[in-house]
Order: sequence, then structure tokens, then C-alpha cells
Amino acid sequence: MSTDTLQLRRTAIDTYHENVAYMHRECGIYRAEGFQALSKIQVSLDDTKVLAVLNVVDDASIVQPGELGLSEQAFEQFSCEEGCLVTINHAEPPKSMDAVRRKINGERLDQADFNSICNDIVESRYSKMEIAAFLVATGQNSLDRDELLYLTRAMLQSGDRIDWDEPLVADKHCIGGIPGNRTSMLVVPIVAAHGMLIPKTSSRAITSPAGTSDTMEMLCEVNLNPEQLHDIVRRERGCLAWGGTARLAPVDDMLIAVERPLSIDSQSQLVASILSKKLAAGSTHLLIDIPVGPSAKVRQMRQALALRKLFEFVGDRLNLHLEVMITDGRQPIGRGIGPALEARDVMLVLQNDPGAPEDLRQKSLHLAGRIIEFDPDVRGGQGYAIARDILESGRACAKMNEIIQAQGSKPIDLTPGSLCHEVVAQNDGIVTEIDNLQMAKIARMAGAPMMKRAGVDLLKKLGNPVKKGDVLYRIHAEFPADFTFAKDLAAQNHGYTLGDSVDLLKPLMAF
Amino acid sequence: MSTDTLQLRRTAIDTYHENVAYMHRECGIYRAEGFQALSKIQVSLDDTKVLAVLNVVDDASIVQPGELGLSEQAFEQFSCEEGCLVTINHAEPPKSMDAVRRKINGERLDQADFNSICNDIVESRYSKMEIAAFLVATGQNSLDRDELLYLTRAMLQSGDRIDWDEPLVADKHCIGGIPGNRTSMLVVPIVAAHGMLIPKTSSRAITSPAGTSDTMEMLCEVNLNPEQLHDIVRRERGCLAWGGTARLAPVDDMLIAVERPLSIDSQSQLVASILSKKLAAGSTHLLIDIPVGPSAKVRQMRQALALRKLFEFVGDRLNLHLEVMITDGRQPIGRGIGPALEARDVMLVLQNDPGAPEDLRQKSLHLAGRIIEFDPDVRGGQGYAIARDILESGRACAKMNEIIQAQGSKPIDLTPGSLCHEVVAQNDGIVTEIDNLQMAKIARMAGAPMMKRAGVDLLKKLGNPVKKGDVLYRIHAEFPADFTFAKDLAAQNHGYTLGDSVDLLKPLMAF
Repeated sequence: MSTDTLQLRRTAIDTYHENVAYMHRECGIYRAEGFQALSKIQVSLDDTKVLAVLNVVDDASIVQPGELGLSEQAFEQFSCEEGCLVTINHAEPPKSMDAVRRKINGERLDQADFNSICNDIVESRYSKMEIAAFLVATGQNSLDRDELLYLTRAMLQSGDRIDWDEPLVADKHCIGGIPGNRTSMLVVPIVAAHGMLIPKTSSRAITSPAGTSDTMEMLCEVNLNPEQLHDIVRRERGCLAWGGTARLAPVDDMLIAVERPLSIDSQSQLVASILSKKLAAGSTHLLIDIPVGPSAKVRQMRQALALRKLFEFVGDRLNLHLEVMITDGRQPIGRGIGPALEARDVMLVLQNDPGAPEDLRQKSLHLAGRIIEFDPDVRGGQGYAIARDILESGRACAKMNEIIQAQGSKPIDLTPGSLCHEVVAQNDGIVTEIDNLQMAKIARMAGAPMMKRAGVDLLKKLGNPVKKGDVLYRIHAEFPADFTFAKDLAAQNHGYTLGDSVDLLKPLMAF
Repeated sequence: MSTDTLQLRRTAIDTYHENVAYMHRECGIYRAEGFQALSKIQVSLDDTKVLAVLNVVDDASIVQPGELGLSEQAFEQFSCEEGCLVTINHAEPPKSMDAVRRKINGERLDQADFNSICNDIVESRYSKMEIAAFLVATGQNSLDRDELLYLTRAMLQSGDRIDWDEPLVADKHCIGGIPGNRTSMLVVPIVAAHGMLIPKTSSRAITSPAGTSDTMEMLCEVNLNPEQLHDIVRRERGCLAWGGTARLAPVDDMLIAVERPLSIDSQSQLVASILSKKLAAGSTHLLIDIPVGPSAKVRQMRQALALRKLFEFVGDRLNLHLEVMITDGRQPIGRGIGPALEARDVMLVLQNDPGAPEDLRQKSLHLAGRIIEFDPDVRGGQGYAIARDILESGRACAKMNEIIQAQGSKPIDLTPGSLCHEVVAQNDGIVTEIDNLQMAKIARMAGAPMMKRAGVDLLKKLGNPVKKGDVLYRIHAEFPADFTFAKDLAAQNHGYTLGDSVDLLKPLMAF
């Protein structure tokens, strides 16, 4: 338990959100301290203290005795050169794990508990497994709504908060799960053309075949630094940028990095994640889209209503003007799934092309209309007509082009991947179900979102009559291996159910 | 999501129970597959499939594009040379995580669920955070006793099981938490001298200042391979070896590797861990020691009784003859805390030295007596007298020497660390409390168990009258830094409470 010093070395290993330290097995400190592999150690230099998981190295070309290697993310937390002397200590487990253990025991936590947990997480004092313990302990129904409010507030306070210095900063957010649901790329230009401030930052796809950032990236730059972002928003009233560079509710990113691989989904985490991010981004008015359908994240109306109440409870107490729209999530929105194909759909709607997917157009107009009604000068019920007028007049398209130019336009080529496979109907019928999860999985197998032109292009939607041999959808890929994998998956389960018109009523009634 | 091949390379990094793969950022597969750092990948060669967490490397001297580096533990799972071609795939999350998610949602799991979870864990399909999720989901009171039985059985089945081919294989186990509690080193020679088979394998200290293996190692070798172990046990009827090399209930080790750093303790995990390990080691008769005291693991008699019932319920159903002794855990046992100091106490008792710590002697005789009563030829109530006779006649000491010779004796030197600090009483009084946790912590800070001669030597125990200036205990260390740290900790809180004889009744009554 003594302290001692080693020379810092940058180890060019990317360990993502986990700090890793590399120490040689023959290193004096390793031998004396009774560390074992995967012990957590504290590395300090003046006031900077970084916790890292220890890996023990037997190869002096990676790290020598007397040196301490740090993975890239860990190294960056020190503002010093390689070779400077750092002090090594045993890491004490984070104090706030006591609160996590109390939660595991079924106790109720207070605001101070959540503050200290979020503070310890953001300062990298939690290992992945400690974060997993926190997520499971606070998952499902184990947080009451007051605790959810405390958690959201603590997550919000864990990072920076943007102040746009305007009375009305609008935003929208969909809870996810519906492929092709690229409404933001239509809502933002419509709302910005109306003159409202809508500085939209989005994520990249993690488990889905395309995020708004992946899709917008087909048209222009999305990696903007904070100064660029501010300039563009001031000038254009809106933007469609990647939100990853700002330090907004950073705890959220660290929780998601554990939540995603564990596939543990809780309503509490969903609400805290969305609201902390949006409040940190400076939103004052927020529209939440909750799609409901048999293969959506929320499968029943009563769940959607319960979730709505949670959003309202927390939003109201954090001084956010929040509205919730429960939407039809029974099938993918639009035709394309994957960055290039979704960008194509968006552009067709903006250009008022008669072949544009009508569901994407209608949903975007409804969402944009509701946001426009946040404007005190707009009469209740008039938002949709205003939004439609902005779209049909070409003003939305013009605004989108201005945003694209401002963010840095790219040569646009939305041709889908050249490897193409058509999935055809095996019999006559009416399309009665399209499985969102399966369609997303096929698009991902085909290479989306990394392979921008890969994905799925739907030719038939719910209610469409089909004849045997009709093409239901096309799979596009850029690489043969991806192509084979996606075709195999579609052969196992193509995601479509054909029936007669009576079957169509079932999912409609459930909704 | 396609498959492709890379050349295998051994990366000399020790990542303990976690498989890590290293791939260069410029590697074609990394670029094509949409992996991100910390994605899990599946590495396969013929029938061997290993899951590993991906680290992305920017240094070609660690791993080149076209190569896949594997951490030492992961590499060893392939029986091939460096340079052979392995196939890389996205790793599907382990199927049994569905059951873990059901448990998180409050459902009851069945035997098949626990089997598939343990199977996935033992085959390294779980990441540390998935194991943490399992532990939290099954922690506290969330397992009923049938589920606990299923879990224990699944853990037992996860590895090998020793068959000693004898009708009575005895063992003892203490649930831990009491410093200096080295009764095994007395119980084993006494019971073996009686002729019963008692093949004791023990752990090394992880969170305590000394384990039985660390202490036994002061006298002889404890790292025995399975053949040596069997030979010694057949010849001597007993052994005191380190249990780490055998593949007994390996899931247990993998759970503990997560449980310990998280400091999450649940009764269910404790019972499943102990019973699966002992059954795998071939025990037919087991005595469990549950110390109770205000700073012990179990603090109240009613908790000890509840824990006893759990042990009995599961033990009976797994065909284990199991008895539980609830013992006095109000203070450390014996005088020494730390490997050398505890070995000294054990040898004093074995040698019938008048200065031997009486509490260690009495407790060991009671435990040994109860085990001797497992012998059908021993009349109930006679075990203690038989044990005492074996000890006093010198037969226990002779047996211990035989075991030491058989395991491989070492030159014995039990001198405590030369750096010595005396902690003295600040006033007159009677010792009314000794904090087990604080004494263990001071001994660890002083360097135990890595520094074998470091630790604490208690001169006063509960009920002893002391005068101001009397030495309560000595701290021994080998290194100045450890010494300072331990002294500082003792200065903050020396762990002793002095009062009058009335105060002494309180902890006694609670017990």
C-alpha cells in the first residue's frame, strides 16, 4: 500500500471508455504492492488522479520495468509528455458504491447519493462492472419517480450545459427502435425555416442500421467543434450535427457504453438519458416521439402512456416544456434502411417528389407542426398547416441546403450498394406485418451503417397487396461477405408476414 | 458481419480472467466489420471458439494489420503456434443473458437456466460486466432457496469433481472475516492423526491479511499438482495445500473475481460458492464455521441461524453430511495477524507451548472434535476429548511434521518484520471491543499477506485489564512505506475500545 513513481508511456491501445494501465511483471512496484492483474490502481501527477485497470505485461517492447503504460484515453487525461514521473497507488473503491450497495439492498436513494454516484462515474472511478452493478440495481422498476428525477438531475450536472441565450430552444427526440425513421432531417429544416431555434445534435448508430448523424454525413460534415456549431445555429437557426464531441451529460455516454452490450433496457434509464442530454444541450422545449408497435421498443399503448407520465413528471420538475407524441411504430418509416437509402428518402420528401415516401412525409409534418406550436404566436392546431406550407413552398429544402452549406457540403452520391438481392413474396396476400427488428438486423448484416450504401430498400409496406414473385424489398451491400450474410439471414426469416385483410386489423386494433 | 482470417499472435499481456484481443486500427477486418473498441469478438480455429474483448491498437510493434493479438490467457485456449490463421466474427451475446434479464425483471429461474448461465460463464462468454449484472440480479434476497440449490448444482457441474473413493471425506470451512483464524492448520493434523481423510485445500488471502495457504507456505510448499496432492493425502490422510490449480467449480472463481472488487456479498453467493467448491473437492462430510460478532461478517445470531438453514437445505439435497458451528467472532483469534505471525501461533499450539494462544487452541479442538464425531465409531460428545488427547500427546504435531515433509519442507523462520511500532493504551480500562475489520486493515497496510513477516501481534484481548501506556499490539512491517501507512491508519483508529467491565457485557449479550 505504499506509493512510488514510474515513467509514463503512451501505449497505443484504444480501450474506449475504460482506462487501462500496463505494468511490466518485473517492475518493482508490481512485485512489492501485491497488485494482481485487473486490480484497479490510481495514477497521479500533481492534481490529476486517474484510475485504471491494471494489465500485467511480459514483453518489454510494450512496457519496460520502471515504466507505466497508459491506454490512449487514459494518457490523454494527463497534460504531460511521455517520460514524466507518475505516482502509483492502490485505488480505493469509489465511496459511492456504498449507495449502489444500499440500492441493491432495496433502499431508496436521495439526491446526494445520485450526485456522488454520477460524480464518481464521470471521473472514471467506476469500472465497467461497477457501472453494470449500478445499472442492474437501478433497472426495471427499482427507481421510483422521485429517484428518477434525482438521477436525471445528477446526470445533467455531471457535464457542461449550453446556454443559447434565447427564450425558446426547440428539440425533438425519438426513443428509437424504428428503422428508417429519419424525421429529424425534415423537422429541423421546417422548424428552422419557421424561425425557431432548433440546434439538433444526434448520435451515430450503435445498434441500429443508421443514426441521423450517419445519414446526414452522406450530405455534409457532421463533426463540428462547439464554436462552429454555435455560429451555424445562430445564422441558420438550426443544425444537424453529431453530438459526440460536446461534454453534455457525459455520465450518459458512460452508462450507455455498458447498457448496450448488456442489452438491459429500463424505462428509467431511457428517461434520464434523454432528458439529461437535452437539458444539457440547452433545450427549453422538447417533443418526444414514442412509436408503439408489436416489434417496436414499446409494444403496448399502456406502456407508452406510463412512459409518457415519467417523461412529463421529470421534465416538468426540471423546467422543460415537454410534450409527448405516441406514434405508429408497426413498421419501418419510409422505404430505405441504411445511411444512403435513408438520405435518398429525405431528399425526395424535401424536393416534393411525387415518389417520396408518404409516411415519412406525414410523420415529419406532424412532428414539425407540434414543435411549431411551441411558438406562442401560433394558434393551437395550426402547426401542421404551417409545416406543410413550409415544405411544399420549397422553403424547407432551401433551409436544408443552407444548413448543408454551413456545415460543409460534400459531393452527394446516394446510389445504393451495387450488390443487390431481391426478396420476393412466396405467395399472394396482403402485407400484414413487417418486423422492425428483423429488417434492422438484415440491414446491419448487409453492412449498414459503416458501409454507407448498404441496407434494405422496402418496396412493399403494411396493407399493400402482393402477388407471388413480387419483390418485397431489395438488399444492397458493398462487400460480398456482408452480402452473403444478409441474404442468408433474410432466407431464414425475411421479416414480412402475408395474410388477408382480416389479419391486418389485429395489429391495428392492438395499437 | 462477415468472417475473415488473421494470423494469431501471442500478446504478452496478462488480463487475468478476461480474454482480450488486439487488432490494428488499419486491419482490413477492423475497418470492414464496424467493430468498435471493447466490442466482443469471436475468434475461432477449428472447433475452438474463444470470445474476447477487442482493443484497437495503433502501434504495429504490438500487433500488425493482418495479425490478431491475444492476451496470454486467451492465447492458451488455442492449442496452436503463433502465426496460425484464425477466423474472426462478431460475438453474439451469450444466450443465457436472456435468463439474467428475466431475473432482473423479478422472474424465478429454473435448473436449466442456471446450467446455461454457468456454462456460458465457464466458457468465457460473459464479460465482467455481464457477470456483475448476474451477481446483482441474484444478490441479496432475490434467490429463493430452490434457486440457490439450482445455482449450487450448476456451479458444481461447471468443472471437475474429485472422487477419493472413500466413504468419509471430511472438510471444514469458515465463512471468513476473523483475522488470525488459522484453525485449519490445527484441525487437519488432529483429524488426520485420528485416521480420517481430510484433504484440505485452501485459498490465498484476497481481501484478508492471510489465508491458510499463505500461512502454510511459511512452513512448506503449498502449490501441489493433482498427482502430488493425491499421493500425499493417501499416505498422510490429510494435506494443507493451495486449491487454485484444480479445476473445481471454476465458475466460482470467475464470480469471485467480480464479486470481490465490487464488495457485493450475498448469502446466496456465499452458500453456493462454499458448497460447490467442497462438493467438487470430493467432500462427503463438512463442518461450517460461522463466527458471529459486531465486526464479523455475520453480526447477529438470527442472521447466523438463517444462514445455517440455507447451508443445511442445500447441503442435504446435494447429499453432503453438513454441520454448522456458530462461533464467537467478537475479536481476532490467537495473537498474530499475518502469515508469519499466524504460523507462529499455530506452531505454539501444536508444540503444547504454555504461551500458546488459548482461544486458537480451544476453537481448533472444538472444531476438530466435531469432525472426529463424523466417524461412526466415535460416541457423540467424545470428539473433543479425542482431539485434545491427540494434540496433548504430540501426535498432532508429529502428523503436521509429516504433512510438511510430504508437501516439501522449507527452512522455517517465523521472525516478524523488523520494523516494529507499539500501539499503547491512552488510558486505563478493560478491553471491551476489538474491531476485526480495522485490525485486518492495519495488517494489510503493513504489507500482509504479500510481505510474509508483516502484520499485527495482539498483546491484549477482550476482557484484559490495561493500564495507560500498556502495549495493546505491535505492528510489524518489512518496508518503510508500508510501515508508515499502517502506523498512520492505527493512529486514525487503533481498533480497540477500552471501558469498564459493564461495557464488556454488551457484546456478550448481543452474541
